Amino acid sequence: MSKFPIPNHYPWFNPELDLFFARTVNMDPERIWRAWTEPELLKPWFCPKPWGVAECEIDLRPGGVFSTTMKSPEGMLVPNVGCFVEIVKNKKLVWTNTMGPGFRPVAPHAMTEGGQGAFQFTGMIFLEAVSEGTKYTAVVAHGTKEHREIHAQMGFEQGWGTALDQLLEFMRDK
Amino acid sequence: MSKFPIPNHYPWFNPELDLFFARTVNMDPERIWRAWTEPELLKPWFCPKPWGVAECEIDLRPGGVFSTTMKSPEGMLVPNVGCFVEIVKNKKLVWTNTMGPGFRPVAPHAMTEGGQGAFQFTGMIFLEAVSEGTKYTAVVAHGTKEHREIHAQMGFEQGWGTALDQLLEFMRDK
Repeated sequence: MSKFPIPNHYPWFNPELDLFFARTVNMDPERIWRAWTEPELLKPWFCPKPWGVAECEIDLRPGGVFSTTMKSPEGMLVPNVGCFVEIVKNKKLVWTNTMGPGFRPVAPHAMTEGGQGAFQFTGMIFLEAVSEGTKYTAVVAHGTKEHREIHAQMGFEQGWGTALDQLLEFMRDK
Repeated sequence: MSKFPIPNHYPWFNPELDLFFARTVNMDPERIWRAWTEPELLKPWFCPKPWGVAECEIDLRPGGVFSTTMKSPEGMLVPNVGCFVEIVKNKKLVWTNTMGPGFRPVAPHAMTEGGQGAFQFTGMIFLEAVSEGTKYTAVVAHGTKEHREIHAQMGFEQGWGTALDQLLEFMRDK
């Protein structure tokens, strides 16, 4: 498990429903923020290889679209469309797939039929400037234990760790 | 229908999925804002009489709870729990029942089993200071035409109009 205690950034944390990942990395928050909020900087690292990101759309405002289409090594496309809900530059980014652009609720059948992936979640990235660089904390909140479990089984901890490694490698000279 | 054109505050407006209500009222935005954001000021007007609000909880921050329990004349309680997603004091208030406190997704079965009401929505109130007082615009976004229709059939237009009348009456001397 991650070595940080439950994130104090997120007072609603519930270990039965949520997942989190935290690491202190040797990069400034501003650079990590750009990697998360500019499509051309996000695509190269967002999915653990050999998966990749075929398309990415970012409208960085509350209610603005956050859309990523993941691509498997065999070329299968997996779209995920959501929207941003809270944006604090260089510090906090919150988005969800329970709502699409304009905070529009995503119809439940769109979730279960796979259009939005297998589960609903709200993702949060917290960046905190520290002497070594950035304390990077990711929290993903789910509505049910089953959704948390699906996400954990998909390899949340390892996946987000690998993606962060890819981010650090890619952004080093950006 | 309301006499304003589609609200320019909400570029994502879709007449097939959304409802809106607009009126210019003789009250300042600050007073209307208080009526929407202080539980003891919300309860007296939020439901068209003879319905009322038995309980109200407001944590006015992004992800904070917005919970109202409506009470029928026969004493039936109808809870609705959501969270705030965007707060611009005296200007814009956005909340949803697709997520609960902490932006946590609401499990789909909780919606259909009636715990969260019959449909998902995101509600928005826009307040604009004008010479007569306030241009008051409410928009409700839905994920499906069916959800919009359920809401319209419940009497959205008349209900929100009556609630606004009650607000103006109650807040006049507050």
